Amino acid sequence: MNWGQCAQNRLSEIAACSVDATGVTRFPFTPQHAAALDVIRLWMSQAGLQIHMDAAGTLVGRKEGPKGAPSFLIGSHQDSVRNGGKYDGIMGVVLGCLALEKLMSDGVALPFSVEILAFADEEGVRFPTALMGPRALAGTFDPAILDMMDKDGVSLRTALARFGGDPDCVASLARDPAKTLGYLEVHIEQGPVLEAKDSALGVVTGICGIERNTVTFTGDTGHAGTVPMDSRRDALVAASDFISAIHDAAKQATDLRATVGALSLHPNVVNAIPRAVELTLEIRALSDAVRDDFARLARSLGEATSEDRHVGFSMQRTYEQSAVPCNDDLIDTLSTAAGAICPAAPHLPSGATHDASAMADLCPISMLFVRCKDGVSHKPEEFATSDDMDAAIQAIADFLKALNANFR
Amino acid sequence: MNWGQCAQNRLSEIAACSVDATGVTRFPFTPQHAAALDVIRLWMSQAGLQIHMDAAGTLVGRKEGPKGAPSFLIGSHQDSVRNGGKYDGIMGVVLGCLALEKLMSDGVALPFSVEILAFADEEGVRFPTALMGPRALAGTFDPAILDMMDKDGVSLRTALARFGGDPDCVASLARDPAKTLGYLEVHIEQGPVLEAKDSALGVVTGICGIERNTVTFTGDTGHAGTVPMDSRRDALVAASDFISAIHDAAKQATDLRATVGALSLHPNVVNAIPRAVELTLEIRALSDAVRDDFARLARSLGEATSEDRHVGFSMQRTYEQSAVPCNDDLIDTLSTAAGAICPAAPHLPSGATHDASAMADLCPISMLFVRCKDGVSHKPEEFATSDDMDAAIQAIADFLKALNANFR
Repeated sequence: MNWGQCAQNRLSEIAACSVDATGVTRFPFTPQHAAALDVIRLWMSQAGLQIHMDAAGTLVGRKEGPKGAPSFLIGSHQDSVRNGGKYDGIMGVVLGCLALEKLMSDGVALPFSVEILAFADEEGVRFPTALMGPRALAGTFDPAILDMMDKDGVSLRTALARFGGDPDCVASLARDPAKTLGYLEVHIEQGPVLEAKDSALGVVTGICGIERNTVTFTGDTGHAGTVPMDSRRDALVAASDFISAIHDAAKQATDLRATVGALSLHPNVVNAIPRAVELTLEIRALSDAVRDDFARLARSLGEATSEDRHVGFSMQRTYEQSAVPCNDDLIDTLSTAAGAICPAAPHLPSGATHDASAMADLCPISMLFVRCKDGVSHKPEEFATSDDMDAAIQAIADFLKALNANFR
Repeated sequence: MNWGQCAQNRLSEIAACSVDATGVTRFPFTPQHAAALDVIRLWMSQAGLQIHMDAAGTLVGRKEGPKGAPSFLIGSHQDSVRNGGKYDGIMGVVLGCLALEKLMSDGVALPFSVEILAFADEEGVRFPTALMGPRALAGTFDPAILDMMDKDGVSLRTALARFGGDPDCVASLARDPAKTLGYLEVHIEQGPVLEAKDSALGVVTGICGIERNTVTFTGDTGHAGTVPMDSRRDALVAASDFISAIHDAAKQATDLRATVGALSLHPNVVNAIPRAVELTLEIRALSDAVRDDFARLARSLGEATSEDRHVGFSMQRTYEQSAVPCNDDLIDTLSTAAGAICPAAPHLPSGATHDASAMADLCPISMLFVRCKDGVSHKPEEFATSDDMDAAIQAIADFLKALNANFR
């Protein structure tokens, strides 16, 4: 059996559960989602799992361990962004099923129960929320989100109920941490690091914390012909100083990313000096302390620019999410398993959020990254090779075999 | 007679010829334009002028000089931008009329004819063209513009004909340079220089040449969390380097202004690295050679940035208009006249284009700037004091008296 090729075939098959043929468009609680779950049920049954869909719409496949043994959870999400790729999310479900099928075919019985979890919604495209499935398991589910509407005015409550879920029982899904060994999520890297380091696999050290800030520079507009250079208070020149300085400072920090991704200019015409610039500054770091330090540095760079260019400056944090470290014991075990197939598999942070972020409230978490072509994700061009997925399946199987049921 | 106060009253009165009461909105060949011409006819008749509207819609008031003497022309435009101020353009007509009225009341007879010209359209808001009136006089009128449409689908030809103009005779308005002594335009400065130098008046040395360029930086987009800083080709960071460098370099040049006024970012979302930035670079200078040199410098700065930040760079000139120097003899005469009322009236370039730019193809030109509050123009807040306008009227009258009919 070529497990990697099988994964590739399965991903091509389930990619057809999509609104159209340009990549994959599969939102939660839709006909495409239902069709995908039918396919995943087949995979789970081939791995010898007992299958049910829980109240939150998570498809659960369980391999029962010895009586009273705790459970180890392997999960990822079934949904995609609009016209996304065929690996993001769903690959973690495919590889988890195949790893368990491989263990079964190798005659391995684990000393704990294992579950594969196919979460409904991680991307948050249909509703202005996400991660309901893992939050329900972790006991952090907020029932207020059930009233959120999609663009057609259908509430999450209604969509979930019509899909066969049970909105009133989502809160009761909370698992007992004492009976939960840990969580593993396998995902494409969605970045260029593994490709650059020529490694099929990477062990994730943690999920970066995120903050978003709105930064504003305010000067004076004026006619581009009539105001001499020395009299100008050009908001765009100040913003430009700031953007370059932020980028260069972020290069010096450890496991940190700082991005000015969106910018608006007023009045934004060819012959007027820019009066105001509003921009977004997103900072992600594996350490919340490093991120806090960088935000302070950003503020001081903004203030220095403000003084230098004689413009106003403000910076306001609009969103914040703490970093989630992966569990050290799981990292070590995963590192050994991955390293056996893929020597010196790098350790790297996850800059993106995953289902694992929410699962961290329940149990120790771990993540394995699989190399993806050109670091591309969320596009039809997203690609991982059969060989790399084969390596991941082997690593998951070895990881599960190495896991000590009592490692906590 | 307080001439400055009279000018202020007249400007308030004609400001009512506007689409609405938020500043002045008066476009060419509209009912507001017709109402304004009725008011200007009164002013011209009070100055003892013979009045007619020419084929291009320019209202002409003429004070006949000795038989066979050449003419000196004083002009400006009647139209405004949308919700503009009550001084831009029209003030030049008011002050010209009052200067001639003052000369008449002082019993001064000039040795040449003088005309006041109230041009229809300098701002170019209604049609995608402007300066038809002065171009007709200069013999540079292009009949093709008559087919240009306003946003309601009315052609310039139709609008002009309905207004009482004669599209087919515009070209025949061309004046004989040999019979045209020169041209003076009086305008608010639309900038902060005179206010900063505490001077009511300024003598214009020339009208800056203009070029506009489209500059593009092209890198790679990517997830703001997953792409490490060292792997990025961020188009916005490169553009920022460029914008700051351009501004600082322009400060070192003589009588030059460089402005990045408009910018668009792709994809322009908070959590994606900017893939491409397109921006406008406008360069204005009194010397075309200085402007050319600066454009070359801008290109080399862009190329250096491109290399430094590993992104693509292109720069394309999309528009160019040569500088127009004012006539040295007229500058000297105007300088003496202005200096008598307003000692050390500064010499300064005009960064903005004016009717004078087109008149330069007919005859020697000159311009007198009047201080405006906070350098503000094209807004309802635009303001010049009665005292400053009084000084301008005195200077125009003295300038005309000092003009030697044979100065060419």
